[in-house]
Amino acid sequence: MPGTPPTRFVYLGPEGTFTEQALRTIPAAEHAVRTPARSVPEALEAVRVGDADAALVPLENSVGGAVPVTLDELGTGSPLVITREVVLPVEFVLASASLTPLASVRSVAAHPQASAQCRGWLQANMPDAVVVDVLSNAAAAVAAAAGEFDAAICAPIGVPRNNLTVLAEKIADRADAVTRFALLSRPAPPAPPTGDDVTSLALMIDHDRVGALLAVLTELAVRGINLSRIESRPTGEQLGVYVFFLDCTGHIAEPRLGEALQGLRRICSDVRFLGSYPKHRWSKKAREEPLPSQPGLTNTDFADSAAWLTRLRSGEPA
Amino acid sequence: MPGTPPTRFVYLGPEGTFTEQALRTIPAAEHAVRTPARSVPEALEAVRVGDADAALVPLENSVGGAVPVTLDELGTGSPLVITREVVLPVEFVLASASLTPLASVRSVAAHPQASAQCRGWLQANMPDAVVVDVLSNAAAAVAAAAGEFDAAICAPIGVPRNNLTVLAEKIADRADAVTRFALLSRPAPPAPPTGDDVTSLALMIDHDRVGALLAVLTELAVRGINLSRIESRPTGEQLGVYVFFLDCTGHIAEPRLGEALQGLRRICSDVRFLGSYPKHRWSKKAREEPLPSQPGLTNTDFADSAAWLTRLRSGEPA
Amino acid sequence: MPGTPPTRFVYLGPEGTFTEQALRTIPAAEHAVRTPARSVPEALEAVRVGDADAALVPLENSVGGAVPVTLDELGTGSPLVITREVVLPVEFVLASASLTPLASVRSVAAHPQASAQCRGWLQANMPDAVVVDVLSNAAAAVAAAAGEFDAAICAPIGVPRNNLTVLAEKIADRADAVTRFALLSRPAPPAPPTGDDVTSLALMIDHDRVGALLAVLTELAVRGINLSRIESRPTGEQLGVYVFFLDCTGHIAEPRLGEALQGLRRICSDVRFLGSYPKHRWSKKAREEPLPSQPGLTNTDFADSAAWLTRLRSGEPA
Amino acid sequence: MPGTPPTRFVYLGPEGTFTEQALRTIPAAEHAVRTPARSVPEALEAVRVGDADAALVPLENSVGGAVPVTLDELGTGSPLVITREVVLPVEFVLASASLTPLASVRSVAAHPQASAQCRGWLQANMPDAVVVDVLSNAAAAVAAAAGEFDAAICAPIGVPRNNLTVLAEKIADRADAVTRFALLSRPAPPAPPTGDDVTSLALMIDHDRVGALLAVLTELAVRGINLSRIESRPTGEQLGVYVFFLDCTGHIAEPRLGEALQGLRRICSDVRFLGSYPKHRWSKKAREEPLPSQPGLTNTDFADSAAWLTRLRSGEPA
Repeated sequence: MPGTPPTRFVYLGPEGTFTEQALRTIPAAEHAVRTPARSVPEALEAVRVGDADAALVPLENSVGGAVPVTLDELGTGSPLVITREVVLPVEFVLASASLTPLASVRSVAAHPQASAQCRGWLQANMPDAVVVDVLSNAAAAVAAAAGEFDAAICAPIGVPRNNLTVLAEKIADRADAVTRFALLSRPAPPAPPTGDDVTSLALMIDHDRVGALLAVLTELAVRGINLSRIESRPTGEQLGVYVFFLDCTGHIAEPRLGEALQGLRRICSDVRFLGSYPKHRWSKKAREEPLPSQPGLTNTDFADSAAWLTRLRSGEPA
Repeated sequence: MPGTPPTRFVYLGPEGTFTEQALRTIPAAEHAVRTPARSVPEALEAVRVGDADAALVPLENSVGGAVPVTLDELGTGSPLVITREVVLPVEFVLASASLTPLASVRSVAAHPQASAQCRGWLQANMPDAVVVDVLSNAAAAVAAAAGEFDAAICAPIGVPRNNLTVLAEKIADRADAVTRFALLSRPAPPAPPTGDDVTSLALMIDHDRVGALLAVLTELAVRGINLSRIESRPTGEQLGVYVFFLDCTGHIAEPRLGEALQGLRRICSDVRFLGSYPKHRWSKKAREEPLPSQPGLTNTDFADSAAWLTRLRSGEPA
Repeated sequence: MPGTPPTRFVYLGPEGTFTEQALRTIPAAEHAVRTPARSVPEALEAVRVGDADAALVPLENSVGGAVPVTLDELGTGSPLVITREVVLPVEFVLASASLTPLASVRSVAAHPQASAQCRGWLQANMPDAVVVDVLSNAAAAVAAAAGEFDAAICAPIGVPRNNLTVLAEKIADRADAVTRFALLSRPAPPAPPTGDDVTSLALMIDHDRVGALLAVLTELAVRGINLSRIESRPTGEQLGVYVFFLDCTGHIAEPRLGEALQGLRRICSDVRFLGSYPKHRWSKKAREEPLPSQPGLTNTDFADSAAWLTRLRSGEPA
Repeated sequence: MPGTPPTRFVYLGPEGTFTEQALRTIPAAEHAVRTPARSVPEALEAVRVGDADAALVPLENSVGGAVPVTLDELGTGSPLVITREVVLPVEFVLASASLTPLASVRSVAAHPQASAQCRGWLQANMPDAVVVDVLSNAAAAVAAAAGEFDAAICAPIGVPRNNLTVLAEKIADRADAVTRFALLSRPAPPAPPTGDDVTSLALMIDHDRVGALLAVLTELAVRGINLSRIESRPTGEQLGVYVFFLDCTGHIAEPRLGEALQGLRRICSDVRFLGSYPKHRWSKKAREEPLPSQPGLTNTDFADSAAWLTRLRSGEPA
């Protein structure tokens, strides 16, 4: 039922990763059922078949980029829509089963993307430690707790869960790294516009020509729709055939985005609507920034031009 | 009252010019009052103040180009709309007060544009005759009838009116020259689309930048609107500041033209709607040509994309 | 021989019109042979066949717009190039054979465009005078001198020539109206750029599609070339087939205009180069305005990008 | 020294992966030194510091998409250029330490991307086997050889190296999946055009506006340059700030690509040239396809328009 908050959440597990931490920032999730899934496809399948109301999965990271499996799952299968985004600072800690001087840490378990994001810190502080790749941040914490390695790079949430001791905090080379998560549900009428919304789309373009992408961007530009993200993903068919994932400014209920969507529908071989939802204004700077508006392309301009057309069509004074 | 055919017509006089001939091709004009005006501004003023229901004035000629005074009058003053276009082949005759061998014709009265369009014929057939400029085709006929000149170049309609004798027919160098006339009325709801309509517009652009004109054309192109005419006229303010007159394919009642009009309204400093009316398919070739339609930009595509948007907004399956 | 100033000038006559007045502003013309021509085609023909070195003809007027015959002549026949533009304020005087009170002037001879530009003044100052159309400003002055009419609207230069007396000065409704003239020669290497030049072009476009004009403007826009004028003229073939006349910012010797010209050559069915010449900065405001320059599209940016490409092609550090 | 084939190759290891298999398809590599690197950064570093002449690393996969670490490494650090691309069909085998019936295989080691590409086959043929994630295809083969798991999904090259027995061949769900590899060297003059070349670029755009990307595509489109790939990668600074990686048709030595590159240089905040190299026409269909050419935008058209400009500039007949 539209408007009813979800009560059964699924998220990319295992427990103790950043995704669980992100889920805990959503008020409705706090007193709801929260089930970890073994993979993004498994999380989305739970929503598709009705075993869960909403799934939280990572979408992109400001250092590592898009999460391919999430895009691939959103672009295929029965449609799902994003109803909310969560942007979470990525903080890594170095943790160990017991308090240990850094100098005596010889082995560190880490997910490869985690160790990549902490490379500078590791070289400066533990140049002689051996870093061993493991399959998730949570697995690193578990392995350190089990004594398989002297320490682990993991998310803060992994520390209490595994009864670890923090040896060093905020060890990522980029202090401002963030991960963006999407909360996905089955299609339903979107919540009303807030004035600062994002609309996500997946576009299939028939040919790999520069002209086709130019046409797509022109449909957006003439309506003053901006892009905050564009990603291409292969369709699996052959090199050079892509699905494009776009995040656009605006909400499907607004005339200008509605008009742009119709334009894309006409020129693309397929357009999949992935939801309109409030923008997470994730940085202090972003929160203080006035919302951009383009002369002639504000919602007011669209309302004015629609009223003018109505007058013209009825033969009234313009 | 919308839909009532006009009963009082005014046209660019004097009697006996191509404009009167064009007016006679409109069935409703045959049994109506037809009053010649001394100038285009006078004709339009008669409609504006309510002394006439409709005015027929020349808009452009396939050899001589736009008729500046008509454009200038349409772009300023209280709004008028084109409800019909008439395209008339321009045929010039050489006529005289009495039957005379060409060899003995020494002086020919002609409007400069008329003599220009017959230059080749004159050089080939009467190389020694002196051509004297007069102020209209009708004035040429009158002067020949009065014996001021041996002959006149005039419209066929000028012959019986002045009791002249035709010395030579179809003397224009271009056999296929045509003039396009516009029937103008006070604003009223336009007649419904026929499927092959024209919409005329006057656009004011703030700056003389190539980017502004590019933006205008883009608004049309993304909706599959084509241009059959674009003319610039000075605004009188300074060199380089123009009003653009456009004839577009389509009808204001159609979604795609309506959307394009709204786009122009948003980006131009002023848009004046000059009417939607059936296209005069003036040549046999043109009448036989199928109407063009662009993949993805037909009226059906616009209807389909609007229905799709409605489904998305309500959360229904796309 | 390139660089030799012309010594034999022809201009649109008769003597005593604005064109002669414009010619007298060119220093080289002062001590040269100056021959009036009866028409624009006759003036250009004199240059084409070598009877004159240069022809001065009107190109456009800030109130009346383009001069069609000049555009049509430039777009056809053997090529000519503009080597200089002259912009002249259009001042009309009311003159008479002898000093006469305005109240007793009953008939005024005037070229229709001249009386149109003085309409407001005439209504305010001589509401009862009859205005009679004649074929040129010079003809009006001649007729007034001959006593055929009580007065004439003419150019200041017509006054001493016909021994007339000025009854009123500056009677045009727009005080700032100007006419732009072009000095035309046979093709020769253009004078070097001054930094504020104009390049004139005539373009033939295969089809009447909005896309073709969009492509033309895009070729200019991507090189930062602006338009100060765009005019369409019929080719005489049928309605809707045009030659476009463009005045662009820049000089053919500059890389960015050269690149844009090549682009137009590739996409248009024909491009006729009509000359690169210094811009007449005709108003005080225009003379004081800094020359516009677009970030990334200055001549320096073009030189920088060319040098960068050379380094890349040779495998040197970028 | 330009033109000298590289003699010291480095490639993404370990031995026995698809990258080694791809390297063996390059004739010059067959009799050269081939050193595996532990990571893409290590491989590129070896070339940058001069320890190797060329590095082969994976760039993208038709199912899995771009290889992020390769893009990130190419977009930063001292410049490297692609001198060759290799496209290799991706074939997975199921292999074991000894011949075993499928029904008795209970555990399968596999890199997550490998098991994802074989998901359908696994469900159909071994629905009850447990798939265990490991860190590379080579690691899977090693683990199976060591008896840690009953079988491994690996590249064919992993079989002889680890003395394994093949239980099933071509088990990928998509029979036509390919991986594209790039051979990277220090900057040097590129080999001459072959007529069917690719040019790779990394572009930094100042703002995240749709207009900036539109401008980039327009620079390409007006010169008839097509895209075969466009990928965005975060710069690490914040969400929404990207480096774009483009593969364009054409060669830097060709005028039209040279002109487009200069245009990109002028409008982007940074352009990194990543090499011009022959296109690997990887499929039979692709090899048989005629090379596309756009009317007005062929290399011949560019040569013609350059010659025309030269004539105009010298005042010669066009």
